[in-house]
Amino acid sequence: MQKITLLINCPDRKGIVTTITQFILERQGNIVYLDQHVDRQESIFFMRVESEFDQEGFSIADFEMQFIAQFVDDYQLTYQLFDAYYKPRLALFVSKYDHCLYDLLGRYASGELPVEIPLIISNHPDLEIVAKRFEIPFKHIAVTKATKAEAEAEQIAAIKEHKIDLIVLARYMQIISDDFVAQFKNKIINIHHSFLPAFIGAKPYHAAFERGVKIIGATSHYVTADLDEGPIIEQEIVRVSHVHSVQDFILKGRDLEKIVLARAIKAHVEHKVLVFGNKTVIFS
Amino acid sequence: MQKITLLINCPDRKGIVTTITQFILERQGNIVYLDQHVDRQESIFFMRVESEFDQEGFSIADFEMQFIAQFVDDYQLTYQLFDAYYKPRLALFVSKYDHCLYDLLGRYASGELPVEIPLIISNHPDLEIVAKRFEIPFKHIAVTKATKAEAEAEQIAAIKEHKIDLIVLARYMQIISDDFVAQFKNKIINIHHSFLPAFIGAKPYHAAFERGVKIIGATSHYVTADLDEGPIIEQEIVRVSHVHSVQDFILKGRDLEKIVLARAIKAHVEHKVLVFGNKTVIFS
Amino acid sequence: MQKITLLINCPDRKGIVTTITQFILERQGNIVYLDQHVDRQESIFFMRVESEFDQEGFSIADFEMQFIAQFVDDYQLTYQLFDAYYKPRLALFVSKYDHCLYDLLGRYASGELPVEIPLIISNHPDLEIVAKRFEIPFKHIAVTKATKAEAEAEQIAAIKEHKIDLIVLARYMQIISDDFVAQFKNKIINIHHSFLPAFIGAKPYHAAFERGVKIIGATSHYVTADLDEGPIIEQEIVRVSHVHSVQDFILKGRDLEKIVLARAIKAHVEHKVLVFGNKTVIFS
Amino acid sequence: MQKITLLINCPDRKGIVTTITQFILERQGNIVYLDQHVDRQESIFFMRVESEFDQEGFSIADFEMQFIAQFVDDYQLTYQLFDAYYKPRLALFVSKYDHCLYDLLGRYASGELPVEIPLIISNHPDLEIVAKRFEIPFKHIAVTKATKAEAEAEQIAAIKEHKIDLIVLARYMQIISDDFVAQFKNKIINIHHSFLPAFIGAKPYHAAFERGVKIIGATSHYVTADLDEGPIIEQEIVRVSHVHSVQDFILKGRDLEKIVLARAIKAHVEHKVLVFGNKTVIFS
Repeated sequence: MQKITLLINCPDRKGIVTTITQFILERQGNIVYLDQHVDRQESIFFMRVESEFDQEGFSIADFEMQFIAQFVDDYQLTYQLFDAYYKPRLALFVSKYDHCLYDLLGRYASGELPVEIPLIISNHPDLEIVAKRFEIPFKHIAVTKATKAEAEAEQIAAIKEHKIDLIVLARYMQIISDDFVAQFKNKIINIHHSFLPAFIGAKPYHAAFERGVKIIGATSHYVTADLDEGPIIEQEIVRVSHVHSVQDFILKGRDLEKIVLARAIKAHVEHKVLVFGNKTVIFS
Repeated sequence: MQKITLLINCPDRKGIVTTITQFILERQGNIVYLDQHVDRQESIFFMRVESEFDQEGFSIADFEMQFIAQFVDDYQLTYQLFDAYYKPRLALFVSKYDHCLYDLLGRYASGELPVEIPLIISNHPDLEIVAKRFEIPFKHIAVTKATKAEAEAEQIAAIKEHKIDLIVLARYMQIISDDFVAQFKNKIINIHHSFLPAFIGAKPYHAAFERGVKIIGATSHYVTADLDEGPIIEQEIVRVSHVHSVQDFILKGRDLEKIVLARAIKAHVEHKVLVFGNKTVIFS
Repeated sequence: MQKITLLINCPDRKGIVTTITQFILERQGNIVYLDQHVDRQESIFFMRVESEFDQEGFSIADFEMQFIAQFVDDYQLTYQLFDAYYKPRLALFVSKYDHCLYDLLGRYASGELPVEIPLIISNHPDLEIVAKRFEIPFKHIAVTKATKAEAEAEQIAAIKEHKIDLIVLARYMQIISDDFVAQFKNKIINIHHSFLPAFIGAKPYHAAFERGVKIIGATSHYVTADLDEGPIIEQEIVRVSHVHSVQDFILKGRDLEKIVLARAIKAHVEHKVLVFGNKTVIFS
Repeated sequence: MQKITLLINCPDRKGIVTTITQFILERQGNIVYLDQHVDRQESIFFMRVESEFDQEGFSIADFEMQFIAQFVDDYQLTYQLFDAYYKPRLALFVSKYDHCLYDLLGRYASGELPVEIPLIISNHPDLEIVAKRFEIPFKHIAVTKATKAEAEAEQIAAIKEHKIDLIVLARYMQIISDDFVAQFKNKIINIHHSFLPAFIGAKPYHAAFERGVKIIGATSHYVTADLDEGPIIEQEIVRVSHVHSVQDFILKGRDLEKIVLARAIKAHVEHKVLVFGNKTVIFS
């Protein structure tokens, strides 16, 4: 049995669902999931389809070639095609905060996340002990203003060496350069500790405390050249009140950060996220 | 321009999305919404499709006849077909609590609910003043143990006279007889003031207070012969604490009841609810 | 039986709870509610106390004079003292959106809000029909750039004539002048249709849609000279997704606005809100 | 500097706040937190006070003796007095599910929980690897019908040996005997994977799925002789829909269980929970 997940977007057109499902049907595919969305304002069609193929000799590569030939030009269609049984390979970037790291490694160890985690990179040595506990290679690459370019080159070399599919900034406290970002478009997920676009930038819990908000949040998003402005994948909130200090905000926020980052990674690695412009379509 | 909403369920079968969308396409339909769901455990296919037809002479009746001919037997398919521009006609049943009534009439007056409300029925005269304020006919039908059968007959006569499509029990404090329920299957929506199945029956806020819960809820559901056991449409919750009395629970619960009932009505009249067994599929 | 609600704040000092509760006790007061909060960072003490007095000849005015004499200078104490049985008088300011107005008047008619509403002011005539339904005086005062000063003078005259205690901007679409605001410090509550400080200013739902957020919110706050920057009283949120249009955001937001505004009014009129700097302490 | 946390409840009486704060003041205590609650229906007074004492020679034991002498009989007062700097010692009971264990140990390793965890007990050997990773003693005590009494005796011996203050059932899949429970009244916290009192007993996610609920929850509570009926400490919920299978419920529920259990433990070890009857007062 083989299984394909297709993510598609193109200008909306009558009959497109019929045509694509027909294409899969002709190849003996069994559609086990189909969700589509039409952005009526922009007239864009989005679809996610999971299909199973159990005949001998079925080839994903052939399917993809035929799919391209039939649709890409004619429908001005953009697609992503995934082997649904392949486990994406993650690199976790961390600094000194350990709560997201413990959370992700706990989920990984529990079998909750269908991924491989062959690499943890940090600009500080502090969390090597956490990596060791979970027996995951830990690479300490110090970053200073002077050495940033070299450090990023070293990071990228490690990422390529380990065939990384997704970079997760799990409270990594360095800004990634535009060059770095450009090489991994929609492949870097960050967790920001505020309800974006409120409290962009550093120290959002302090800013939220100053403003006297009654709810704080966390936001996971793809990293783009504009800091904290990338496409949002997931957000969650929790209530606070006057009895809570900044420290309480930070402590309550930890749970938000863990959950929001984990949900975003899960959606990404299950190929449920389609980025369009600066927004995301999140299929269920 | 005409617009049809189709709700479908049938045993799952390869190619069914293709076949149905093809059928609509052949009649020059423009599919503006499609959502499907497969219950993998039971192998049941569910779909909701909205299509627009702008050619002269298009007839919904003809469409339906052809649809029946092609699908109903062959696919063991159950369907509901609605003229999307028709406004469902609601009868509101109330007793003495006025908050849900005020809420629904406010939404109706604001144009928020795409319905007609030609009839309010109550077993008490108290809320006639509310009906008058919104200029809606109010029918007081007293109900006692002795007169229950007659009273229900009178209610049903009024419902038929006003061509009612949906009965809304907006904190109506009488149990509907099985005979009555049987005549309006999946056409009576109730609001229960607890997070079902917790606190079935009378005085759920008191029971919740006794149990010392930290969250209370409200549930809207279709009415079936089994009290508080019908298919759930919507639920919502709010946090409570030891500082809250039963009265506080009741007061906080009012907002839940209003919102949960309004959401359920909206989903129903927009044909987004498909009942299957004792559950609902709620399309987005 | 008489009942007093006291709101107090002053620099924190050892023994202050003892001293104040002793003061009430000496006057045969029965403390039925006491909540205190210490802002440890700023070393400020906040307290809310409700006390009942059932002896003949007890005088709130005398109590207040003695309280001032004992505490205000010595403790650098700021206080508000309310007769808990007095019903605050509200003026509702509206424009064309009617959902918050219907919601507040429904709650008022249901007896849910312990207030009087002797006045509705609008810069448009459209909602007079709503006021009429609930038999509340409606004053249409048109506002243009040229007539703004006059219009506000007329508004203020009406507010004084009706002895208004709290002004509620129930989706009132005019900016209040600084002069007006200065006359009613912490006595004007606004509902802003975003999760402040995100999406300050006009068209927040459109801005939220553009940004692709996964959660939208509403915020009630006291009006200050800085637009949308006043002390926040209450916030609430609801999830949205890519399937929702701007219109859906607006529709979902209506329920948020209604609830958040109603909760803020309730907290204010029950004297549970203490403004300090640009923040609020909300007692339970 | 020494710090005391007092939890008190007694029949309500005029002047009690004054008297107790006076008592602390007389011993040069600085009250840094005070929250009180009066159950008006039962006329019970509840209070939590944190006080700091920095004079030489201050003795918590003396304070307690004097407190008892002055209050316990006279006020029919029940109290708990804690040295706020002492770290409670936890025993974690687990079976095969590892998510709550990973979560708690991650929080512990992060310094998020002010506790010691000297002991993990399991009726299965599977999770020894998790204990090893965090370098915590793991005791495998098999439990069968035949050996239950012995097994519990062995558990209790280990608990006493390690001077355990709180037992946490972190998805421990055995029912604790009444005798065991009686020895640790309000000292055993369980996490139940439903929104109690809905879905008491085994397989709550399956039951929730069958009932077609739109929201699932988790509940932490003290263990009593009546299964799933003990005083509730914390509850949390998450929305589900028809697209979610039982497996999805279980997966979504894991995050609920982790958070709800962690919050309950935190509240307990910070002495913010006061059990009264079958309910809890949770101070902020």
